[in-house]
Amino acid sequence: MTFDDEKERLRRSWVANASAWTEVVREGRIESRRVATDAAIIDVVTSLRPGKVLDLGCGEGWLARALSSAGMEVWGVDASVPLVEAARGLGGGTFVAASYEQLAAGAVELPEAFDVAVANFAILEEDVSAMFTAALRLVRPDGALVIQTVHPAFAGDGPYVSGWRTETFAAFPGEWPESMPWYFRTLSDWVAVLGTHGWRLADVREPVDPRNGRALSILFICRRG
Amino acid sequence: MTFDDEKERLRRSWVANASAWTEVVREGRIESRRVATDAAIIDVVTSLRPGKVLDLGCGEGWLARALSSAGMEVWGVDASVPLVEAARGLGGGTFVAASYEQLAAGAVELPEAFDVAVANFAILEEDVSAMFTAALRLVRPDGALVIQTVHPAFAGDGPYVSGWRTETFAAFPGEWPESMPWYFRTLSDWVAVLGTHGWRLADVREPVDPRNGRALSILFICRRG
Repeated sequence: MTFDDEKERLRRSWVANASAWTEVVREGRIESRRVATDAAIIDVVTSLRPGKVLDLGCGEGWLARALSSAGMEVWGVDASVPLVEAARGLGGGTFVAASYEQLAAGAVELPEAFDVAVANFAILEEDVSAMFTAALRLVRPDGALVIQTVHPAFAGDGPYVSGWRTETFAAFPGEWPESMPWYFRTLSDWVAVLGTHGWRLADVREPVDPRNGRALSILFICRRG
Repeated sequence: MTFDDEKERLRRSWVANASAWTEVVREGRIESRRVATDAAIIDVVTSLRPGKVLDLGCGEGWLARALSSAGMEVWGVDASVPLVEAARGLGGGTFVAASYEQLAAGAVELPEAFDVAVANFAILEEDVSAMFTAALRLVRPDGALVIQTVHPAFAGDGPYVSGWRTETFAAFPGEWPESMPWYFRTLSDWVAVLGTHGWRLADVREPVDPRNGRALSILFICRRG
């Protein structure tokens, strides 16, 4: 399995699984999101008091809608055309179908000088240079990049080593035509990859599951390095 | 149990347990240190190529000796008089008995402009302001503070919340007259406490136990914020 195979399978999965994904998100069927991680990302972005937010990997658009309702101007970008179409169906933002590579290359017409870019469980590739470059291009110099992702140290029993893993969606309701490869990164690799792409870790949040005391995710609040 | 009680019990434990501690360290009886964490702290400090190192909470002095052997000029400071005496017994550095509060207040005669300050499993208090202030005072502006500590997310099954815990030393050989209170800090609280005390997290290392793939500790490489 080569690097490009994983990336291509990842891209394809978000097309093939678009309607199953839209349904579980809109029906609130992912428990960790409902009990903690949705509120965590909204809280952190809101605390930064942005006027204009770029939602990178916006999916079907729930976060854009939530932030719009709170008075922010939100642009959402996702590489999956059916997910962007689903987002447009409910509105609450301006939605654009584009890859991180297209954003990084400036090939997409978007406003610049966003106050905050947010990537909510949306960094799934091994090579993150396009995503970080896009954020550098589109966020104003004193703005922030907010990332929510799987908490590296609470991500199951596998060895604590960065590498590709597979999400089969077996724990999710609905029909999932394709499994999704995703790149697991240790905490130290997260901090390193931020540093090598022009960002530094300014703050961290770890929403805890009230039922078992475990961290459900991690949020990195990043500033230009 | 008040805050000061814990701090006083912590201080006392390092006097009462000094000879048991000296023995387990010098005989290499702490497995995690032998398989990974000793090498990790030496590697990180060495990679920074310092001439002059301040070992905060040096204990019986093993790290100072190791770094001196590698050609660095090392000063070790510890609040436990019997541990400092043990360190002086083997040499490999200049050892001073003083608390972080005394260092922070400039009440101890030490060189300034250290290239690196290192705290190897030596930040055990809830209130870390004296330690971070001492490091700000004693490390040169472009120097580094290196901290190795318990990995927050691999520190047992308790709830993931910062707070006082107790080390009974039951897993250690030897006679331990007193248990040791120590303050557990989540990752997000570590990053926050660095930020509020003039330091920022520049890099992270997570030595992994080769036998089970779990992280045995975490190292924070910090620069002035």
